[in-house]
Amino acid sequence: MPATPVGPADATRIPRYAGDGTFARLPRLTDLPDADVLVWGVPFDTGASYRPGARFGPNHVRQSSRLLRPYNPALDVEPFTARQVADAGDVGVNPFDLGAAVATIEEAAGALCGTRRRLIAIGGDHTIALPLLRVQHERHGPIAVLHFDAHLDTWDTYFGAAYTHGTPFRRASEEGLVDLDHSVHVGIRGPLYSRLDLTESEKLGFTAVHARDFARQPIDDIVNRVRARLGDRPVYVSIDIDVLDPGFAPGTGTPEAGGLSSRELLEVLRGLAGLNVVGADVVEVAPAYDHAEITGIAAAHVIYELLCVLPEEDR
Amino acid sequence: MPATPVGPADATRIPRYAGDGTFARLPRLTDLPDADVLVWGVPFDTGASYRPGARFGPNHVRQSSRLLRPYNPALDVEPFTARQVADAGDVGVNPFDLGAAVATIEEAAGALCGTRRRLIAIGGDHTIALPLLRVQHERHGPIAVLHFDAHLDTWDTYFGAAYTHGTPFRRASEEGLVDLDHSVHVGIRGPLYSRLDLTESEKLGFTAVHARDFARQPIDDIVNRVRARLGDRPVYVSIDIDVLDPGFAPGTGTPEAGGLSSRELLEVLRGLAGLNVVGADVVEVAPAYDHAEITGIAAAHVIYELLCVLPEEDR
Amino acid sequence: MPATPVGPADATRIPRYAGDGTFARLPRLTDLPDADVLVWGVPFDTGASYRPGARFGPNHVRQSSRLLRPYNPALDVEPFTARQVADAGDVGVNPFDLGAAVATIEEAAGALCGTRRRLIAIGGDHTIALPLLRVQHERHGPIAVLHFDAHLDTWDTYFGAAYTHGTPFRRASEEGLVDLDHSVHVGIRGPLYSRLDLTESEKLGFTAVHARDFARQPIDDIVNRVRARLGDRPVYVSIDIDVLDPGFAPGTGTPEAGGLSSRELLEVLRGLAGLNVVGADVVEVAPAYDHAEITGIAAAHVIYELLCVLPEEDR
Amino acid sequence: MPATPVGPADATRIPRYAGDGTFARLPRLTDLPDADVLVWGVPFDTGASYRPGARFGPNHVRQSSRLLRPYNPALDVEPFTARQVADAGDVGVNPFDLGAAVATIEEAAGALCGTRRRLIAIGGDHTIALPLLRVQHERHGPIAVLHFDAHLDTWDTYFGAAYTHGTPFRRASEEGLVDLDHSVHVGIRGPLYSRLDLTESEKLGFTAVHARDFARQPIDDIVNRVRARLGDRPVYVSIDIDVLDPGFAPGTGTPEAGGLSSRELLEVLRGLAGLNVVGADVVEVAPAYDHAEITGIAAAHVIYELLCVLPEEDR
Amino acid sequence: MPATPVGPADATRIPRYAGDGTFARLPRLTDLPDADVLVWGVPFDTGASYRPGARFGPNHVRQSSRLLRPYNPALDVEPFTARQVADAGDVGVNPFDLGAAVATIEEAAGALCGTRRRLIAIGGDHTIALPLLRVQHERHGPIAVLHFDAHLDTWDTYFGAAYTHGTPFRRASEEGLVDLDHSVHVGIRGPLYSRLDLTESEKLGFTAVHARDFARQPIDDIVNRVRARLGDRPVYVSIDIDVLDPGFAPGTGTPEAGGLSSRELLEVLRGLAGLNVVGADVVEVAPAYDHAEITGIAAAHVIYELLCVLPEEDR
Amino acid sequence: MPATPVGPADATRIPRYAGDGTFARLPRLTDLPDADVLVWGVPFDTGASYRPGARFGPNHVRQSSRLLRPYNPALDVEPFTARQVADAGDVGVNPFDLGAAVATIEEAAGALCGTRRRLIAIGGDHTIALPLLRVQHERHGPIAVLHFDAHLDTWDTYFGAAYTHGTPFRRASEEGLVDLDHSVHVGIRGPLYSRLDLTESEKLGFTAVHARDFARQPIDDIVNRVRARLGDRPVYVSIDIDVLDPGFAPGTGTPEAGGLSSRELLEVLRGLAGLNVVGADVVEVAPAYDHAEITGIAAAHVIYELLCVLPEEDR
Repeated sequence: MPATPVGPADATRIPRYAGDGTFARLPRLTDLPDADVLVWGVPFDTGASYRPGARFGPNHVRQSSRLLRPYNPALDVEPFTARQVADAGDVGVNPFDLGAAVATIEEAAGALCGTRRRLIAIGGDHTIALPLLRVQHERHGPIAVLHFDAHLDTWDTYFGAAYTHGTPFRRASEEGLVDLDHSVHVGIRGPLYSRLDLTESEKLGFTAVHARDFARQPIDDIVNRVRARLGDRPVYVSIDIDVLDPGFAPGTGTPEAGGLSSRELLEVLRGLAGLNVVGADVVEVAPAYDHAEITGIAAAHVIYELLCVLPEEDR
Repeated sequence: MPATPVGPADATRIPRYAGDGTFARLPRLTDLPDADVLVWGVPFDTGASYRPGARFGPNHVRQSSRLLRPYNPALDVEPFTARQVADAGDVGVNPFDLGAAVATIEEAAGALCGTRRRLIAIGGDHTIALPLLRVQHERHGPIAVLHFDAHLDTWDTYFGAAYTHGTPFRRASEEGLVDLDHSVHVGIRGPLYSRLDLTESEKLGFTAVHARDFARQPIDDIVNRVRARLGDRPVYVSIDIDVLDPGFAPGTGTPEAGGLSSRELLEVLRGLAGLNVVGADVVEVAPAYDHAEITGIAAAHVIYELLCVLPEEDR
Repeated sequence: MPATPVGPADATRIPRYAGDGTFARLPRLTDLPDADVLVWGVPFDTGASYRPGARFGPNHVRQSSRLLRPYNPALDVEPFTARQVADAGDVGVNPFDLGAAVATIEEAAGALCGTRRRLIAIGGDHTIALPLLRVQHERHGPIAVLHFDAHLDTWDTYFGAAYTHGTPFRRASEEGLVDLDHSVHVGIRGPLYSRLDLTESEKLGFTAVHARDFARQPIDDIVNRVRARLGDRPVYVSIDIDVLDPGFAPGTGTPEAGGLSSRELLEVLRGLAGLNVVGADVVEVAPAYDHAEITGIAAAHVIYELLCVLPEEDR
Repeated sequence: MPATPVGPADATRIPRYAGDGTFARLPRLTDLPDADVLVWGVPFDTGASYRPGARFGPNHVRQSSRLLRPYNPALDVEPFTARQVADAGDVGVNPFDLGAAVATIEEAAGALCGTRRRLIAIGGDHTIALPLLRVQHERHGPIAVLHFDAHLDTWDTYFGAAYTHGTPFRRASEEGLVDLDHSVHVGIRGPLYSRLDLTESEKLGFTAVHARDFARQPIDDIVNRVRARLGDRPVYVSIDIDVLDPGFAPGTGTPEAGGLSSRELLEVLRGLAGLNVVGADVVEVAPAYDHAEITGIAAAHVIYELLCVLPEEDR
Repeated sequence: MPATPVGPADATRIPRYAGDGTFARLPRLTDLPDADVLVWGVPFDTGASYRPGARFGPNHVRQSSRLLRPYNPALDVEPFTARQVADAGDVGVNPFDLGAAVATIEEAAGALCGTRRRLIAIGGDHTIALPLLRVQHERHGPIAVLHFDAHLDTWDTYFGAAYTHGTPFRRASEEGLVDLDHSVHVGIRGPLYSRLDLTESEKLGFTAVHARDFARQPIDDIVNRVRARLGDRPVYVSIDIDVLDPGFAPGTGTPEAGGLSSRELLEVLRGLAGLNVVGADVVEVAPAYDHAEITGIAAAHVIYELLCVLPEEDR
Repeated sequence: MPATPVGPADATRIPRYAGDGTFARLPRLTDLPDADVLVWGVPFDTGASYRPGARFGPNHVRQSSRLLRPYNPALDVEPFTARQVADAGDVGVNPFDLGAAVATIEEAAGALCGTRRRLIAIGGDHTIALPLLRVQHERHGPIAVLHFDAHLDTWDTYFGAAYTHGTPFRRASEEGLVDLDHSVHVGIRGPLYSRLDLTESEKLGFTAVHARDFARQPIDDIVNRVRARLGDRPVYVSIDIDVLDPGFAPGTGTPEAGGLSSRELLEVLRGLAGLNVVGADVVEVAPAYDHAEITGIAAAHVIYELLCVLPEEDR
């Protein structure tokens, strides 16, 4: 492991619009195989039920991350100095077979994580959270899931398919991956199929901070609710970018009005500092519906804040 | 009348991106002529003074409503079960003659409403509020108007035209349609022609909750101000989508910076539960200026919340 | 069967931007169950290997067809008078299982066609051509396929999948659906995987008119080449909209530079008059990449010309 | 009159993206009241039957004209040296009353033309051709009309309105403005209401060069057909930008596939050199549907070529 | 000086979408050389380090300002009556030489301001703030700078260039232009290069109100912090439009998630009433990335509010 | 040098939308330092006089090249088998100093080319052609330049700058880099400053095939004219993407109507087979103005055809 982590490409030699398109212009894993933390693309959207296109998400978020710089004044940390972060590239996933895709993602993520590494995945659609949770569970046991989303994603099946972007957290609960007393949805809103959607989600182990709560509670109270729920367990953070209002994230597959602002989302993420975040995903960025990279930029900043709240003991 | 209302098309058989483009994938009035509540398109924009194009609004909002589901967790209601909602299609309106258009809309709306039915119109520009208010007045007497808009829409004439999208509430007041003690504008902002605009609006019966009030007052206080003003009168809700900030609703004809978020608007609408809402319109969605349906989705959710606060005694 | 076919909605009563969004504002099959010719939506894009989104194609093409009128001066025919054309709506297809989707489309198309009806399908991706060819083959025996496309679509498998948008004509040839002496690709261009792609396509029964031939041969010579190849056999016309240059059809999934103009495509289609066209599809319109409906309008005109060259004995 | 006409702003002092937005950065009429030729905006689209928005056309075309330079190598002429060209600004037209609008345009155009000046109008929708033809007729008697368009624009009325964008040439013929033996449509294509549309157009004095003729005839033959038809009469050139294919002009109100390329249109215009062009309009540019100014740029070049073929004796 | 200032063009004669494109449709300086306050375009973006294109900003903001009206209800003032405001057009700046550009802007701004006039510049990139501050300093001595921005803009050099859009406030401080005890950044957020960025900015005389402060402090508290810092000094207001969140201002060059809403920005500006604002700029509007003018409209309203808080003694 | 060149990433393992974004998914030079032919990004647009943004061109063209496959049926060649092609990444160029930029590009290109390697550069604006020609001249003596462009690019200076995107071929001729008897512009069109532009261009060594010649001459005649002019000299091909009509290439900085189709351009390039092409550039792709990658795809295909006509003796 290098004494000093290698950071982003030097913007005084290669302007930010130029050069290689890794996340935040960080080194590639192939160049730094001992990296501590990986940002990894999972280009896959066959589990999408409405607008597809998140298969183009990873490279869009990377392209939108070119302005990220090494010091975070909000948390007073330097995420690329505290540990070696690298871009692990994309996994090749079968676009025609959901089961095969889930298996490939699980295997590849497991290999990347090994016993130690923390992994932040860029989707792809939300289907990918299931194999990623399996990998975390194998290492840490039941996981406290912090799930940002407009939707519960705890449906059962859709057109007979068990693995889709609407079902990962039901599957994960059924498989015992979720810590039933410490998981929480944030940003839930919009019409549901029925009252049962909420009660079943609770049975699966989730409480909920609704989007409309942000209209009435101070942001720090919401942070405290989230922290209290997560406790000191290993936390997996799963962020569907549609937790943001369509005005802040048009480039997504199942948009719902009335969502969070990007500032609200970033503030809640900053509030995770000190928790034991073991992995994360940022999903459902569908570039064909984005404009001027506003969704991609929001996703890039979300990943940046996640990198900033990873525990320091990594190195 | 059917024992159980027919709801949206079954998404487990016809995916949401497929099939007929009625509002929320609800049945058509032609198939269920006894429906209780109608969503109705009024494609007309000849009254627009700046960007035209709201004539394409009704079908754009319908297309943007495909993700709406039957249960509203915010209010714990099922709007499509409490009553039969149907899509009444579009009215054919003369695009070249404002007077003829207003007459056609009044006549068609009257026929659709009959003595009992509640009607939510999708514009079209704001000109259409006048004939719709006439129909309501005929059934209920003076109407408490709850008007969401960046603009007062109480001008007198423009280029000699009495019926335009800037004049409906002046005409309505002059005609005695408006309950002078119980009407209110919400979301007003942006430059006016003169101080008189405000005082004349007050003379016509309107108080105002300004957009900037949302920066200072808790949302529930604003709801209470609105409810106090409306009282127990029959309420007509007229929503110009430009009440939202251009960031949340770019697809409109006369955008003004500094507006409401979609979450704020939806919260105020939810606050109307229990009032006697007799009709509504959602106007000024101009699809040529929309992006990724963010304006259309906001409008679709607005209509959904309106359906949710309609009085239960309908059936 | 009605004495006089019912044509598009009357534009002097319902302006073209208003009213129901069937293809060319024609009646629905549910209202005219005896219609002779059907335009049918097959919203399905799980077979796409690059940009998905053709699942939104059918309704986009319908929306783009609102300006179509009943008389075609180029051919001096009235397609909606010569026979009853109706919009058969969309089929509900499983988005997560390619095999199930192909089976559903075949069954539904067979039921719609019965023994007599001609069917023009709006895709959806090119996967759908296989089940549609099966239906035609069952009725007519081996089919002369006229295939407009930038690509050969005669690959074998992709990620193990036999049914994708790159394989329908290989599968169809293997199944004996294609008349080996009378089928032709038109518009082929762009890089291939290898020289074998061309020779294998020939073995499967296809000759090719390359896109670059349009730069050197008069349009009527190309029409004659196509007619000579098709002969007097039953003809199925399969049109991937990417046969057009990206400048004329940006809204598609696998665009290639150097394609046909919309005028060239329409002229070749007009040249089919008098042939025995038994069915057709227009596929790969991906609305998220379209602009101002230029791709949708091209597709709508393509369908219109197909309707105009259907044999007159239909009725 | 100045000895040397004043040309566009000096691009070596004010870069082309900067400075005042007159057509081709030419002087304003208010600064050079003796100008010989005027480019004039007629922002009006109330006569549009499908997509409105051409009211924003004049300023969009001006913005798209910033790259025009003073020497035309195709014709070896300097249009801004041969005569003083100025931008006459926009006329203020009633957007709510078609009859008043037509009267205002006629009066204002007459005043601008006086007895001598040639006028090129930027629409606005095609309604404006009627009052402009009246002004030309008053000065020159029956006018040979050279009409570029996808549509005939010789309908009778629409929703009872006699003055719309679909009717100007019927009205003009009825009023005796059109030289019955010397007028011609160019670029006609797309479906019509009936066979009568063509025969009635011929009775009104028009022959037609169809868009599909461009696929079969050399461009110079088409030029010769047009010149032969126009003869030596005073010619009015009316150019609906939808004569171009939607790929070349997406920003318009009633697009039809299969149109001309911008090169074809410019070549026909260049072929008018030596004719007695007395006036012109370029209409139906609807900026909300344009992309990267491609429609605006085409329109700007069209006006430039028109300026280049104006007779030299102007000065 | 005229007894009554000339206001915007009369919208009852020239509709807002028509006519000359000056800011708010105000008169030009060339027509009213005695104007008190000038809005001036500085089309220049060679100092941009990421997305260029702000050279098209001035005319885009003007085009987006057509809906501004003469009375501001939020402040109960009529900015165009209190003083003569005029549009001073654009300065011609060398796009290839940063030093020459800065010199040209300084000279031209000095000439425009004379000893008395207040100037609001529309950028252009943020490089232009330096020469504008020099002009203000020459007249008023050290200036209290109120700087709205996502970024500090106090870098030293970039690729060896001292004058870029990231350096104006460092240069200004070094030159002694900035009042070290009375300047403040508002809206700062996003990653920095290092902790030093903040401490160096403080050494240069700036405190900071961070964007995240808006999530926790009432808007009036923030106004009070700003006013307390500025005191009674001559204030220069420099507004980088990227202070807004990308959802409210996509059309800019270096967007960062988590920004202000347009309502928050307008409220802070309204809070400046009564201060001695001597000049201002609104920069970094990059139209190629804007959609439906939402960024342009925000910028236009920002300028409008600035005009409203200028001291009344101007006249 | 490897026995068999390494081609693009295997699309049967990594779908085309996934994985690393090199040109055509080829290997990087850093991984294959002995590559024969390089595709190289030169992200630089400070020489642009109108719309900037070509600095984002290289990565946009790479992203648009993901569908390129290894066999070219038009020429029956496999460009990635005949020689090792690699992506050389981007050069870091000073965006604020034109002279420094030209020097950096020259030095870097020289180092990359060595004595043997052929280089195809992706711009960036057309300024970059000058240093690239210097490198070629140093190796081959006077170069026959084949220049595709709407513009002559033989201006002298602009705002005092000798090195801009309008001047490279004047500078190159002055420096003796251009073979005066064997160079040719193709696609010239649009207004010029004066007749002198043409005569001066001829003095500098260029004849011209005008865009309008494509409307009258068969494509093979044009190819023959070009080949005859180039003779057997070392040829440098410089392609400004604005040689295409804006309908085929909206994403560029100085668009002119009436250009080539992408098919015409590709055909002329294919006609170069057998000539001694020593280097090339494809410039002026400005992604902010592109739509659905149509400009990027055209540029990617242009580079692909260039790779296909490189002499075989490379290896």
